[in-house]
Amino acid sequence: MEIPENRLIDKIRRFADRSRDVLRGIGDDGAVIKLSQGSYVLVQDAMVEHVHFKFSFTNPYDVGKKAVYVNISDVLSMGALPLYFLVTIGITPALTSKDIGRLYHGMRQAAREFGAIMIGGDTTESKNDFFIDISMIGKLVTKTYLGRDRAKEGDLIAVTGSLGESAYGLHLLLEGKPTKGMSTFLKRYASPKPPYPVWKEIVKHDITRAMMDISDGLLIDLGRMMAESKKGAVIHLEKLPIPPLLRKKNKEVLALSGGEDYQLLFTFPKSRLKKIQGMIQQGYPISIIGEVKQGKDVTVLSQGKVYEAPEKGYEHFGNSR
Amino acid sequence: MEIPENRLIDKIRRFADRSRDVLRGIGDDGAVIKLSQGSYVLVQDAMVEHVHFKFSFTNPYDVGKKAVYVNISDVLSMGALPLYFLVTIGITPALTSKDIGRLYHGMRQAAREFGAIMIGGDTTESKNDFFIDISMIGKLVTKTYLGRDRAKEGDLIAVTGSLGESAYGLHLLLEGKPTKGMSTFLKRYASPKPPYPVWKEIVKHDITRAMMDISDGLLIDLGRMMAESKKGAVIHLEKLPIPPLLRKKNKEVLALSGGEDYQLLFTFPKSRLKKIQGMIQQGYPISIIGEVKQGKDVTVLSQGKVYEAPEKGYEHFGNSR
Repeated sequence: MEIPENRLIDKIRRFADRSRDVLRGIGDDGAVIKLSQGSYVLVQDAMVEHVHFKFSFTNPYDVGKKAVYVNISDVLSMGALPLYFLVTIGITPALTSKDIGRLYHGMRQAAREFGAIMIGGDTTESKNDFFIDISMIGKLVTKTYLGRDRAKEGDLIAVTGSLGESAYGLHLLLEGKPTKGMSTFLKRYASPKPPYPVWKEIVKHDITRAMMDISDGLLIDLGRMMAESKKGAVIHLEKLPIPPLLRKKNKEVLALSGGEDYQLLFTFPKSRLKKIQGMIQQGYPISIIGEVKQGKDVTVLSQGKVYEAPEKGYEHFGNSR
Repeated sequence: MEIPENRLIDKIRRFADRSRDVLRGIGDDGAVIKLSQGSYVLVQDAMVEHVHFKFSFTNPYDVGKKAVYVNISDVLSMGALPLYFLVTIGITPALTSKDIGRLYHGMRQAAREFGAIMIGGDTTESKNDFFIDISMIGKLVTKTYLGRDRAKEGDLIAVTGSLGESAYGLHLLLEGKPTKGMSTFLKRYASPKPPYPVWKEIVKHDITRAMMDISDGLLIDLGRMMAESKKGAVIHLEKLPIPPLLRKKNKEVLALSGGEDYQLLFTFPKSRLKKIQGMIQQGYPISIIGEVKQGKDVTVLSQGKVYEAPEKGYEHFGNSR
């Protein structure tokens, strides 16, 4: 590490916003916060260099931003609003003091968009692999949590936003292709901001009990939700929100199997269909893509026929692309 | 990674104890817990291979145990009791599925001793450096938190247990010395259980407002407490709880500068001296080692003369030994 731990902590401390419910923030063995009675969501999600990202594709500012976004995405997916977070970074010799500053800048930027406050964490050396690991606490704002285990037979399946954008952004970077006019894709890869406005609308109208974010690709993640709910699913390729460019380039598979879109996947009873259609008419980015069935498999139909996806998504950056 | 993420999570899930306040544990985007109104302590502390430990000296079971202990130590130091924790592990190719099982075994063992429950986390690959990063939430049981910022001029300074044990244990391992009869030292290094009985007694009698654990060595950590409290300190080498073997071998410096003892350092007003002396007579391992002064330095006296410690402690395993 370029600078001693004590000085590093003084530097990091300046990135912590204040709140009167934070009785003690960075600078002690732990943070102390006041919490009211209720249900709270706790998440923890890491990003590791050479596995989830490379500094040659993503600058420290965006790494910090993304690390916060992915944790906020998990908190929102459970039906909670983020409050506080702690950050551990494992600093390799290659990282400069300025890089670390940019990293915390990115974190603070992303956190402020959702009102979350950094209250602590750990800084350590790491010999070869930089890592950032964030834990976050949020307060449930829905009546009960929105879980992967709560999809019901006959529910409709929906997703927010577009799918495959992040994976195509990464594809462009990996192939060294021209990126002019491709900022939608690159931005979704570098800085996947959770779809907050549509989340708020879904929560406000009490649309769902079963929600998760799409981090590893629609097929894998829908499969996980169905496994937890002990159900199956049928989805329709035509109904997926696939960017026209990806359809044109025959890259529809990225919408099924590309990861890191951090859009929301949720199910809802048919009794709520009118409400959802109203939201769609108002311009909220929601696509109804299929239905929950008995059984345990996820079936993709294309023009009514079973479609076999060429690959089932990826688990990590480093080994499958 | 040897086994796919889904199967790994199923495996880890079996190590999570149950509680009726855990509404949703491992298997979703986040955990959901019920909390009563109050003040809570949040901590997050990591251990990185090649920096904090090596698998050649510490087996996966002990790594898991230690990672939980160091977080519990931080929670206790703030005046709180641990409740729940989340674990991120970065798994290198060298780790087997059995190693990971042993790691979670160790974590559960340590957590159960303090009633803490694992509720979530993340598993990821790491190319070269294994790491484990734990976040933990505890509930404050003291009237106000016990902080590094609360030492007052005229307070006496005390520590629990013995100092230098862990560092001497590591020294034995690094030098490849005979370890027969050395289990006290080796055990403190491998598995530093926080001094729970004496902590309970200190908290029960409302002895202190300023406490921290000694993770990086007494001199560094007392220096940090004094810096946060904007005070200075004088301590006496003769009064330090140094194991006779270390005095005999002229290794007193390990009590000042060796890390990882995870004993408690605290200050208390002189009005509480009688109470503390009573606790010491009852056999609680407490040593009164000095006094808080105006100023900002930590001065060590030996036979009344200023003692210059040969080294000021270490920050990490990898580079200073």
